[in-house]
Amino acid sequence: MAVDFFLDIPISFGHCDPAGIVFYPNYYRWFDRCFHTFLQERGGGHRALCAKLDARGIGLMDSGARFPAPASEGDLMTLSMTIAEWGSKTLRLAYEGQVSGRTVVEGFEVRGMFVERDGRLRAGDMAELRAALSGV
Amino acid sequence: MAVDFFLDIPISFGHCDPAGIVFYPNYYRWFDRCFHTFLQERGGGHRALCAKLDARGIGLMDSGARFPAPASEGDLMTLSMTIAEWGSKTLRLAYEGQVSGRTVVEGFEVRGMFVERDGRLRAGDMAELRAALSGV
Amino acid sequence: MAVDFFLDIPISFGHCDPAGIVFYPNYYRWFDRCFHTFLQERGGGHRALCAKLDARGIGLMDSGARFPAPASEGDLMTLSMTIAEWGSKTLRLAYEGQVSGRTVVEGFEVRGMFVERDGRLRAGDMAELRAALSGV
Amino acid sequence: MAVDFFLDIPISFGHCDPAGIVFYPNYYRWFDRCFHTFLQERGGGHRALCAKLDARGIGLMDSGARFPAPASEGDLMTLSMTIAEWGSKTLRLAYEGQVSGRTVVEGFEVRGMFVERDGRLRAGDMAELRAALSGV
Repeated sequence: MAVDFFLDIPISFGHCDPAGIVFYPNYYRWFDRCFHTFLQERGGGHRALCAKLDARGIGLMDSGARFPAPASEGDLMTLSMTIAEWGSKTLRLAYEGQVSGRTVVEGFEVRGMFVERDGRLRAGDMAELRAALSGV
Repeated sequence: MAVDFFLDIPISFGHCDPAGIVFYPNYYRWFDRCFHTFLQERGGGHRALCAKLDARGIGLMDSGARFPAPASEGDLMTLSMTIAEWGSKTLRLAYEGQVSGRTVVEGFEVRGMFVERDGRLRAGDMAELRAALSGV
Repeated sequence: MAVDFFLDIPISFGHCDPAGIVFYPNYYRWFDRCFHTFLQERGGGHRALCAKLDARGIGLMDSGARFPAPASEGDLMTLSMTIAEWGSKTLRLAYEGQVSGRTVVEGFEVRGMFVERDGRLRAGDMAELRAALSGV
Repeated sequence: MAVDFFLDIPISFGHCDPAGIVFYPNYYRWFDRCFHTFLQERGGGHRALCAKLDARGIGLMDSGARFPAPASEGDLMTLSMTIAEWGSKTLRLAYEGQVSGRTVVEGFEVRGMFVERDGRLRAGDMAELRAALSGV
């Protein structure tokens, strides 16, 4: 599978916990930031896309991450994002973060596009989002 | 499976994103906080336990969470934690967050106890941690 | 000056940095959470108040905090909030966090109520907010 | 005063609150990250400097920030840091964040270098840190 997006994350003091390694919820913040930066570059950003597609948000349904090795202050992590699968109502993203060629995090997000129809929030059709991200 | 620990999380404005719902990495911060509060009450806290067991930390190996419904500002979430499984080198924790009886997050953490032996970090034996948490 | 609101903050592992003490931006998150919890209890919450007063938000204009002593994992901080001054367009809040009677943080926020008038965001009249918080 | 360091901060969805603007404690996280990136580039990083100078940390004594204009999702903020004053026991840093030439945050940090002497934490002499940052 080809990687669809990269984001460099320089690990800073404030990302780390008293054990001196990255406090793990930060990895999820970076997954989210990677996806939103991708939206920015490919589709004008989350807000513009939501306006265009009459959606409330492109939010999370499922997520996960495992941590084969620790990362800490001063490390430069390269986070890669791959579009793993477009479902009819879901988009699955795969992430991998490496520091000097060593994998420190491997994870995924499953996202839906939430639309308000007849006064209720529902998972919208992903074909429109896919088209808006132009040929991804 | 009996629930082993509870933590009330009042959802605040600052926990939420521009879509008005909880920014999902916060759920993982709360999982972590729930576990550490449990350590505090059962074993005197992470620092004391690490000193006692000559460990560097009781850290993450794997994690995951799905989000069946959104939560937002003003909601009171009750987060329950269950010790799902003690392995020889791992501890699996199951979490569920509810707002007014509706599940907003369901997840897990797999933790190991990292010890330094012969100059290398390894996953230590969980029997000692289990004993230190006295009969859990 | 009488204290207007209290919030207990149990300091957790994940709030602390590699030096083992609270990562200081967290104190500002707690100031914000304290204020919003106060709004919740006195005025039904930020969202309800904004709807009532036709405002976009009750946001920050200025802030500051000094840190006379460190706090760390396992400490229970009691954060007190005092309404220091109602200006015509501003509300000044004073905060103090103590652990076992020792002050660990002392700070303030200056907030305005942002309203959209003639297509522009402006600082609204605080008299309405003050009234909505009923006799504060 | 000449600017001593720059850091670009692309504002992401997850940095913003339900009002759609940056949740203000994030500005302080970025101040801290800017300073630590500066330490990385000039002195090998916080950990290396602390080892060299036998210090526990280069931490916060005071801080403040005001917010003349909002920033939101998709904005690119350029954060500049200036060494405002070397005191004998303190270092004062001034920060300014701009988006497209408009100032969105203006703040400061006062830091000390904490050393353990005779079993107590004290504010150490800043001359050593200044020298280690080679001619700043």
